Amino acid sequence: MSDSDDRYQRGLENLSQLDASAPERLARLTAEVAPDLARYTIEYGYGDVFNRPGIDRKTRQMLTVAILATLGNAAPQLRSHIRNALKVGASREEIAEIMVQLSVYAGFPAALNGTNAAREVFAALDADAPSESD
Amino acid sequence: MSDSDDRYQRGLENLSQLDASAPERLARLTAEVAPDLARYTIEYGYGDVFNRPGIDRKTRQMLTVAILATLGNAAPQLRSHIRNALKVGASREEIAEIMVQLSVYAGFPAALNGTNAAREVFAALDADAPSESD
Amino acid sequence: MSDSDDRYQRGLENLSQLDASAPERLARLTAEVAPDLARYTIEYGYGDVFNRPGIDRKTRQMLTVAILATLGNAAPQLRSHIRNALKVGASREEIAEIMVQLSVYAGFPAALNGTNAAREVFAALDADAPSESD
Amino acid sequence: MSDSDDRYQRGLENLSQLDASAPERLARLTAEVAPDLARYTIEYGYGDVFNRPGIDRKTRQMLTVAILATLGNAAPQLRSHIRNALKVGASREEIAEIMVQLSVYAGFPAALNGTNAAREVFAALDADAPSESD
Amino acid sequence: MSDSDDRYQRGLENLSQLDASAPERLARLTAEVAPDLARYTIEYGYGDVFNRPGIDRKTRQMLTVAILATLGNAAPQLRSHIRNALKVGASREEIAEIMVQLSVYAGFPAALNGTNAAREVFAALDADAPSESD
Amino acid sequence: MSDSDDRYQRGLENLSQLDASAPERLARLTAEVAPDLARYTIEYGYGDVFNRPGIDRKTRQMLTVAILATLGNAAPQLRSHIRNALKVGASREEIAEIMVQLSVYAGFPAALNGTNAAREVFAALDADAPSESD
Repeated sequence: MSDSDDRYQRGLENLSQLDASAPERLARLTAEVAPDLARYTIEYGYGDVFNRPGIDRKTRQMLTVAILATLGNAAPQLRSHIRNALKVGASREEIAEIMVQLSVYAGFPAALNGTNAAREVFAALDADAPSESD
Repeated sequence: MSDSDDRYQRGLENLSQLDASAPERLARLTAEVAPDLARYTIEYGYGDVFNRPGIDRKTRQMLTVAILATLGNAAPQLRSHIRNALKVGASREEIAEIMVQLSVYAGFPAALNGTNAAREVFAALDADAPSESD
Repeated sequence: MSDSDDRYQRGLENLSQLDASAPERLARLTAEVAPDLARYTIEYGYGDVFNRPGIDRKTRQMLTVAILATLGNAAPQLRSHIRNALKVGASREEIAEIMVQLSVYAGFPAALNGTNAAREVFAALDADAPSESD
Repeated sequence: MSDSDDRYQRGLENLSQLDASAPERLARLTAEVAPDLARYTIEYGYGDVFNRPGIDRKTRQMLTVAILATLGNAAPQLRSHIRNALKVGASREEIAEIMVQLSVYAGFPAALNGTNAAREVFAALDADAPSESD
Repeated sequence: MSDSDDRYQRGLENLSQLDASAPERLARLTAEVAPDLARYTIEYGYGDVFNRPGIDRKTRQMLTVAILATLGNAAPQLRSHIRNALKVGASREEIAEIMVQLSVYAGFPAALNGTNAAREVFAALDADAPSESD
Repeated sequence: MSDSDDRYQRGLENLSQLDASAPERLARLTAEVAPDLARYTIEYGYGDVFNRPGIDRKTRQMLTVAILATLGNAAPQLRSHIRNALKVGASREEIAEIMVQLSVYAGFPAALNGTNAAREVFAALDADAPSESD
């Protein structure tokens, strides 16, 4: 097994543990257009970066939520990563605090739209609905 | 009554006059996630800033429409503030001119998407439809 | 015929050749709000710029796809210009490569959302569906 | 004289009245790279849009300041347009209010950086310094 | 003492503990332009939000660094908050990890420019240089 | 030699051919802060993506210039990639056309600031000056 296979396998396991349906959603999204992009996402995002030491996994996911809510144009990814942050130990209150912090530095609309994304994720979890975003 | 209550009450009255259903929509958006964010929005945005002297209310709302259309990722807020700008005296022509100005400085797609938001607001008003955006 | 009419006529012909339904969609979008913005879009975007020498038409459209995917908040325009790029000779693989390139410089969410826009356009073309975006 | 010459002449006069050294700065910026871009800026920005009715000149310049401060990456243009806004009648207090409004919708860093640009322009004017930005 | 004075005093103490020269820098920046903006920054950013429970201070500062590095156009604030994050307990390695995480979600240029800001802050601290950014 | 070493070696050679001083600049930028980020930039940006088939090298660099000029907050990278685009065969006129195209889709300030970056690169090349940007 080559290192490249290693990175992919390691990434795939990391992503699957976080969100069992994510690899399939990612493949469906990219299969007809850019299959290598799904592979790179898994290799780089989840094989190289996700498991790096130096920062605990919960803080890393919370940082990702802050980055995506700041970008403001990545709604599917924001919802996925809010769900992932909860899965690795962030509380709903901690997600909410990210949005409050956002209001100071990126403005109230970004904070309110991030809050709305969180509200949708929390409601879906409470309804025991299977994840539909990515 | 403390000053903090003052800021909230003053903000709530300002926001309610502008858009009677906005406080409830804001509360619904944030209630389960970040109730303090709704309070801060009202205290800071509508208690501290909204009524400041130095700029008339119509110009202030038009500036807000320009800011939100430039951000380009705050569609619900853009629609609300277009409606609010009309309520405090901006004409539909003035809203349109904001979008024309945007075409020079933020590009044609931002201008066209802002125009589309305005078109939706104007159509809803003409249909006498109750506001559904926030 | 004045030069201004010339620019408009030239732009209209260019845009119509690229996407026969675009002028009407553009007019519908702006008619009640900012009709001059439709005219400026056609005069400047398609009369002045579109046909400039110095860069071939396919490369020009691919650059536009890259710009719009980077902005990240112009989904209707992104879909239109992916379709236009295909029409002037870009292959689906070339569209996909734009998104891969985007992953390095604008991040994976921008790349994945651009890929999703491409997927929607390709699927609509395969279904022989009439264009509905703009 | 053709209409295209008209647009350019009209734009050049408008821009020169606003800022006598701007056309030369613009030409110097683009001469070796993209001379047509200077022409388009003058034709479209100052020939077509600048003098449109429907919004008074002061409000139009204040909107431009709001758009540029929101973009956050156009410092030379922001400084120029703050100066232009003052020239067509905006007060320093009104410029300041744009930045306060920005704090709500685009965040405090954007507002503080816009304030800093205004501070630089005001100081240069007070020092009677010739304009150096564009 | 009113609640408004309370918020300001509390904010001022928080900010001063974090960065003793920040209040004066902020006042100097805004004094001639928008003094209320300095007051709001202190009241809202440091009086209302900074000390909220629910998230520890180090994580809160790291989130702010992530937000500012994502915005990409707030260099003075980014340098200040990197320094503040170190002051409340973040390690240099943790700052670096924020930038690595940024490379996945906001692209390599944002990550490299954030890294450069961190490098400047670390170098200034090592040189025992007094802070000059804000 | 492992695949990971392969990706790094391949990326390093690609980057060095394009810009002989870039690897050292990149290392200097990241050495004290985030050395892995330099490695990832080389592995992913220049090992995985740079040499992909499907798009010729000149078009790929031109797309990168368009992406960076649109982001608007990555000035050092924009200058580097303009230089790289010239090196792989883009003409100065083609770089200029990217900026003209930008004026339609991202606005005139982005186009003018991109033009200014190009002007600086062209002037440095004409002066036979060693590259100082990165």
